[in-house]
Amino acid sequence: MTGAEIISSSEARRVALAVLERAGVPAEAAVVQADLLIEADLRGRPSHGLLRLPRIVERIANELIAPATRGVSQWKKDALLDVDGMRGLGPVVAFAALEQISERARSTGVASAVIRNSNHIGMLALYAERFAEQGQVVIALSTSEALVHPWGGRRALLGTNPIAIGVPADPEPFVMDMATGLISMGQVHDYAHRNLPLQPGWALDAAGEPTTDAMAAKSGAIAPFGQAKGYALGLAFEVLVGSLTACSLGTEVRGTLDSTHACNKGDVFVVLEPASTGVVGAVSAYLDEIRNCAPVDPRSPVVVPGDGARRRRARNLEQGISLPRDVWERLQALA
Amino acid sequence: MTGAEIISSSEARRVALAVLERAGVPAEAAVVQADLLIEADLRGRPSHGLLRLPRIVERIANELIAPATRGVSQWKKDALLDVDGMRGLGPVVAFAALEQISERARSTGVASAVIRNSNHIGMLALYAERFAEQGQVVIALSTSEALVHPWGGRRALLGTNPIAIGVPADPEPFVMDMATGLISMGQVHDYAHRNLPLQPGWALDAAGEPTTDAMAAKSGAIAPFGQAKGYALGLAFEVLVGSLTACSLGTEVRGTLDSTHACNKGDVFVVLEPASTGVVGAVSAYLDEIRNCAPVDPRSPVVVPGDGARRRRARNLEQGISLPRDVWERLQALA
Repeated sequence: MTGAEIISSSEARRVALAVLERAGVPAEAAVVQADLLIEADLRGRPSHGLLRLPRIVERIANELIAPATRGVSQWKKDALLDVDGMRGLGPVVAFAALEQISERARSTGVASAVIRNSNHIGMLALYAERFAEQGQVVIALSTSEALVHPWGGRRALLGTNPIAIGVPADPEPFVMDMATGLISMGQVHDYAHRNLPLQPGWALDAAGEPTTDAMAAKSGAIAPFGQAKGYALGLAFEVLVGSLTACSLGTEVRGTLDSTHACNKGDVFVVLEPASTGVVGAVSAYLDEIRNCAPVDPRSPVVVPGDGARRRRARNLEQGISLPRDVWERLQALA
Repeated sequence: MTGAEIISSSEARRVALAVLERAGVPAEAAVVQADLLIEADLRGRPSHGLLRLPRIVERIANELIAPATRGVSQWKKDALLDVDGMRGLGPVVAFAALEQISERARSTGVASAVIRNSNHIGMLALYAERFAEQGQVVIALSTSEALVHPWGGRRALLGTNPIAIGVPADPEPFVMDMATGLISMGQVHDYAHRNLPLQPGWALDAAGEPTTDAMAAKSGAIAPFGQAKGYALGLAFEVLVGSLTACSLGTEVRGTLDSTHACNKGDVFVVLEPASTGVVGAVSAYLDEIRNCAPVDPRSPVVVPGDGARRRRARNLEQGISLPRDVWERLQALA
């Protein structure tokens, strides 16, 4: 444990931009990548935040990330954008693709981008939010290295395969973002680091036996969320993304966590046009009805996905973000 | 308890077709509706099977189902089919829409149908399977009456909001189909009927208190599957379908279970073209790797979603389907 530093997001941004530019990332791309990481820290998702920046720098140095490309995209069909990320920065490639399909969906009603050969795209909520704010419905899917076991199985064969869904609403869009693992490997490492036991049912060890030992779980497998149903969903996302992008699958996926392998997972975005601008009122009223639902525990009001992230963001914009001291020192040294 | 009858699926089909045609359903539409119900019984999902046919007949008699329409569809945008179901039979309207977007997606790469004012569409797996067999990726979503409580909330405010995903594979497509409720209201009724207690955490009573009394749960709410994550997903599907179809939301949804209200839920289908025909091999090999994963319990091999349904279908095609005696008698009387 090295303790934490509280840093203003503007100071963190300044340092992150300097780190990226020194590593050879063009200014405009550095903004996209830095903001994506900082937004994760602001929203209380440090596993997808600046913690990841030193690895990005290593991957650039190892030529696993090409810092100056937005990828090469072509309209394979009228509404289907095929993207070779050319080893580009994940968020740079993803936003470039999303801008194209967002515009195309205005005339086609629905458009999709299928991306391979790109790097980790970070917190999916940010992509869904950006285009839901502009009045479109967004579905975002990405795969990852195999960390999750099939329901009833002993080995990690599925990615944590997150999904985000964004839907226009007032005053803020609805944004849901979740992985299909019960916990994240980041949490397992955090428990191991703090010498805390995992809860039963969260993980298996390397031999496929249930364990509460976080150290043992690091080389094992995470459970899918929601038992058999969550497993079915995570597997469906893996084969759907695999089918659309021709990316690698299961244990063949590399490069989302390491500094030694090209990244061969896939990303899929679908953007759709709502029925009318009028539906925003109905969706927003319904979300308020959910928020106002009487809670089982009076101290825990019912929340709509995305509300907590927004509250944390507002607070952290004022108070600063918390970074492990060693990470902050590393970033300053890299700047 | 009235006991069960084992009936050959061909005999059940003959009777179901006679029931539908006597109720005024044209022959071609009767085949679509009857086959959808019988396939659910064949695959071991009786809640979506012939059990529902008497209600369909009542809804036709009450003019809540228009038996002779496929709905009115128009290409609102190049790849977005807007469908007013005109109170048609759910499967008839849905398959008509899917055929159009499947063909359109061959040139646009992705196409979507958004359907309102249509009736219950039954087991979603069948739609995903049909078009995945033809080489396309399918996402199917539908909403339902509010039966599920928000995570931490006391009232049923969400539909059971199922999703199905179909992906081409050999020798059979991957087909996943699941509701976002932890259990179905059909199961609650079944437990009540058999005087069995529910498991803790499955349901709330009408006052929003946790209950294991199935009778009390019938007027209460079902838990979302997968706790907060499953709730987030079910809510995302509800607002996504609401935004795209302008259907009713939450407690305003009617007509999926009763014989007295027009059906005002929504359905959304998205059809996409895979990267190439070559990906089928990779997806199929990966699915076999999942099937061959060492199981935690040697008596329970790891299963891929859809495999169990296929096995039950093969068995029931030979041995017949099991129907409650009163349902079978009712159908014979209606034929």
